[in-house]
Amino acid sequence: MQTIVAVVGGTGAEGSGLAARFAQAGVRVRIGSRSVEKAHEAARSIGGQTTGHANPDAVADATIVILTVPLSAQVETLKTIRGSLAPGAIVVDATVPLEVAIGGRVSRILTLWDGSAAQQAARLLPGVPVVAAFHALSAEALAKLDHAIDCDALICGDSAEAKAAVKQLAETIPGVRVIDAGPLDNARLLESAAALLISLNLRHKVKDSGLRITGL
Amino acid sequence: MQTIVAVVGGTGAEGSGLAARFAQAGVRVRIGSRSVEKAHEAARSIGGQTTGHANPDAVADATIVILTVPLSAQVETLKTIRGSLAPGAIVVDATVPLEVAIGGRVSRILTLWDGSAAQQAARLLPGVPVVAAFHALSAEALAKLDHAIDCDALICGDSAEAKAAVKQLAETIPGVRVIDAGPLDNARLLESAAALLISLNLRHKVKDSGLRITGL
Repeated sequence: MQTIVAVVGGTGAEGSGLAARFAQAGVRVRIGSRSVEKAHEAARSIGGQTTGHANPDAVADATIVILTVPLSAQVETLKTIRGSLAPGAIVVDATVPLEVAIGGRVSRILTLWDGSAAQQAARLLPGVPVVAAFHALSAEALAKLDHAIDCDALICGDSAEAKAAVKQLAETIPGVRVIDAGPLDNARLLESAAALLISLNLRHKVKDSGLRITGL
Repeated sequence: MQTIVAVVGGTGAEGSGLAARFAQAGVRVRIGSRSVEKAHEAARSIGGQTTGHANPDAVADATIVILTVPLSAQVETLKTIRGSLAPGAIVVDATVPLEVAIGGRVSRILTLWDGSAAQQAARLLPGVPVVAAFHALSAEALAKLDHAIDCDALICGDSAEAKAAVKQLAETIPGVRVIDAGPLDNARLLESAAALLISLNLRHKVKDSGLRITGL
């Protein structure tokens, strides 16, 4: 089955960075947005086989749906798309539960009732394999298409098959090494690691810190 | 002023690994333990100017006190030593609030009332500069004295002066790069990162995974 990737929130910095990298690798990409106009615009700027759509239309034939929206939009967006997911589709949640969602800081995270943003997504998507991934990949680094990414991609989830598909997709990005971080309830550790990088970016006045796990 | 380091919980794997590295660098080290006998034994095996003591005696003339005890022993140990700290002493907390303290898993962390184990330590030590550090340095890697450590040391705290002293100490360990991760309330992110490494060790059957921040 051909991989078709929908990036929901694909007009934001993180989403369009991922979309551009996958398009560059020859993957068919659907950009989803609340605004069809903005989705078209982002798709045109990426080029290749990339197309732009309203969020529910973007996911309709996607085998992998990547959610890159702020925490404040996560629940509503999932409710908007869940009726349109193709059978067998995998949902990848990249949400970092930053305190900024309630007017706080981008370097702090909230403790969610479900334990993590990815588990919150899984609760809203019964029966759908959810993988947590891509939190640590800097939007700025993704956007520099001629540069490899100096960052590992830690992923977790409860379906080995879904993790394998996401691993294969992630490894199309030059420089990215995928590391299996276990079941979905480890997502809070990945979300925390992303907040740590945001905090280091602010403190050390850079935009693209990343992380590498040594000893593996 | 000469640096004198007390390692409280210095007979455990993490504490004795740190103690051995600092002793190797020529630092004067006091090993603290609840058992004076075990402290003597650990000090003898490390050698150099290292001496063994009951915890309160170990900290009495130390300029930097490093706490490497399990979460279950953290509060009691701090109460035991706080009356014996030298004026101006810095306390470095390396506690990772692992769920194992309540019979759970070593790859999960508890959410503490204070936000992190380091903030819990700071609450119990009013007026004492507390730095969170050393969580991610593998005990196994520390013990291999002829090998450099392939891991960054993220540190945080509210006293710039105390962080500078801990940075200078940490950089005596070959391979370690110290990264300032901000104020003490970021300690939860460092504690989470350590739990992530423990989880990766278990999953990938290694004992000494570490982390490097890229882009800084």
